[in-house]
Amino acid sequence: MVDKALRIVRAGAVSRPVMIAIAGDSASGKTTITRGLVQALGPDNCVSICVDDYHRYDRAERRDLPFTALHPDCNHLDIMEQHLQLLASGQPILKPVYDHRTGEFCRSERVEPNRYIIVEGLFPLYSKLSRACFDVTVYLDPPERIRRRWKLTRDVRARGYTRPEVLAEMNRRIAESEAYIQPQRSQADIVVRFAPIPSRDDLPATSLSAELVLRPTIRHPDLSSVLADHPSMRLKLCRDTDGRPVDTLHVHGDVAEEESRTLEKAIWALLDQPGDVPDRLGMLSWGKRSGPLAVTQLLLLFHMLDAA
Amino acid sequence: MVDKALRIVRAGAVSRPVMIAIAGDSASGKTTITRGLVQALGPDNCVSICVDDYHRYDRAERRDLPFTALHPDCNHLDIMEQHLQLLASGQPILKPVYDHRTGEFCRSERVEPNRYIIVEGLFPLYSKLSRACFDVTVYLDPPERIRRRWKLTRDVRARGYTRPEVLAEMNRRIAESEAYIQPQRSQADIVVRFAPIPSRDDLPATSLSAELVLRPTIRHPDLSSVLADHPSMRLKLCRDTDGRPVDTLHVHGDVAEEESRTLEKAIWALLDQPGDVPDRLGMLSWGKRSGPLAVTQLLLLFHMLDAA
Repeated sequence: MVDKALRIVRAGAVSRPVMIAIAGDSASGKTTITRGLVQALGPDNCVSICVDDYHRYDRAERRDLPFTALHPDCNHLDIMEQHLQLLASGQPILKPVYDHRTGEFCRSERVEPNRYIIVEGLFPLYSKLSRACFDVTVYLDPPERIRRRWKLTRDVRARGYTRPEVLAEMNRRIAESEAYIQPQRSQADIVVRFAPIPSRDDLPATSLSAELVLRPTIRHPDLSSVLADHPSMRLKLCRDTDGRPVDTLHVHGDVAEEESRTLEKAIWALLDQPGDVPDRLGMLSWGKRSGPLAVTQLLLLFHMLDAA
Repeated sequence: MVDKALRIVRAGAVSRPVMIAIAGDSASGKTTITRGLVQALGPDNCVSICVDDYHRYDRAERRDLPFTALHPDCNHLDIMEQHLQLLASGQPILKPVYDHRTGEFCRSERVEPNRYIIVEGLFPLYSKLSRACFDVTVYLDPPERIRRRWKLTRDVRARGYTRPEVLAEMNRRIAESEAYIQPQRSQADIVVRFAPIPSRDDLPATSLSAELVLRPTIRHPDLSSVLADHPSMRLKLCRDTDGRPVDTLHVHGDVAEEESRTLEKAIWALLDQPGDVPDRLGMLSWGKRSGPLAVTQLLLLFHMLDAA
C-alpha cells in the first residue's frame, strides 16, 4: 500500500516501516490486542506507541474545559500527524508522554522507527493525513455496555479514579464519542467487535465472540477453503451498516481451543513464514487464552507481515 | 537566503519564517542578546527557543556519563534538526523542555512558528542540516575568562549549583567545548565578542567593547559612510583567524550614549522601517544600557528585517 502513504524519504533514514493503526474509544481493548502483536513480532522488530500522549491538556486542566479528551481540540492532532509521517518515513520522534496514572505530562520519550510500528489510541484514523501513514487500519467496536464495564474496572483499578468519577466522565463523553471517535469505524480496513454470545451477557471475556468486518480496502487472506468445516467460525458476505459490501468473519466465543488453533495454523500457512504460529496470541491480561482474540491478532499479524 | 534552506512547504502552513541562530558556549550572553531582539520585534511577531532543551540526559543521568552536555551524543541533535526544519517550513512543533533550575525534563511545550524565530543554544550551527534552516547565523565568542566569570555567577545564583561544582564542571567541559562548540564560530555569518578594554579587566559589563566579525556570507549594511566621523566605532577590513577576508566592526566600551544612538539611527534608516529605532536595545539584565550591545542587537535586527 505504498501509494496510500505520504512518504518523505530522507537520506540516511531506515527503510519504510510497516504501520498499523488500532483505533477505538477508551477501554475498547486496544492495549490487549497490541500486547499480543508486540509479543508475536518480537520487541526487537516492533515498537508500539499510544497517540493519547498527544493530549493538549492534563487532567486538572481538562476539569475546567467545555470538552473532554475525546474532542479533537483537546489533542495536538496536527503534531500527531506530523510524528506519524516522520515515523512512516523512517525518522525518530521525540514523543510527549501523558501519565495515565497521575493525569500529568512528563519527560518526552525518544521513539526510533522499527520494522513494524503499532499505533493505538483515540484518534489515529481521524484525519486523512494520519490515515495515509498506515498500511493496515483497525477499529475496535465492542458493544457500549461491555466497553463501559471494562472502562469502569480499569480506571478505578489502575488510574486512580473513583466509580462515580468514571461514570460521570463516561456520560460527559457520550456526545463527543459519537461525533469524533465512532466515525473512525467507517475508515478502518478491519472492524473488530468482541461481544458476548446473545443472552449470555454475564460470561467472562474468555467467552466473548469476535465479529470482524473485513473491508475490501486491503487484500485479506482467502479463508473460504480454510473455514469450510468449522462450525464455530464463519465467513459471510454482508452489507455493512452503511450498505457497503464487506466480508464478516465470526469466531464463536465457545470455539474449542483445538479448532481455533487449526484456523490460526491455516492463516499462518498462507504467509510462508518460517516457524510455527507465534505463541502467546490470544492472551488476556489475567493470563487466560481467548480463541477469538488469537484469531483476530493472527489476522492483523498476517496483514503486517504481508505488507513487509 | 531561500536557497540556503531545505523547505518542505505544506498546504496550510504559514509563510516561511525568518530564522536566526545565536550559538555559543554556556553563559556566553545568548539570552541577553535574545531578550533585546524579542523586545524589539515584539512578542507577537516572534518566538524564541533554546535548543539546549534537546539534551538527551537529565542532570542526574549526566553525572554517570563519560561526557558532558557539550558532547553531541548528549543531545538529540537529529530531533533538533527535524524540529528546526519543521519550524522553517512554517509548522508547529512539540518541543521538549529541560528545566535548568531543577536539571530535569518536564512537560513538552507547543511552539507555533511566527514571522521571526530566534534559536539560541549550544548546537544550532553544528550540522549542515541545522544551518540550512537559518537566514542569519551568529556565534558569541567572549574571552574565556569573561565567560567563566559569567557562568559562575549565573549557575550559582539561578541554577542551584555551588561554586566548586561550577568550577569542576567548567573544567570537565574544556575539551568538549573546543571539539564541538567553538568550531561553530567558523560557520557563523556574524561573530560577536564582548571584551573588556585591554588592561581594564575589572570594569563592569556596561563598559565591554563589542568586536563583530562580519563575514561576507550575507549582505551586511554599508556602514562605511555612517562610521566616518566616529572615533569610538571603527569598520576594518581584516583576515579572520583562519585567513578568510572579513569586515570587523569595533564599538568601544567607552562609546558615549549619544554616539552609539547616532549609529543605531543610521543603521535603522537603511532599513526603511516605519517608526524610530526600537527602544530597550542594549539593556543588560540589571537594567543598565550598553551601547556596544545595542549596536550589536540592531545589526542582527537589521538582518532579520532585511530577510523578511
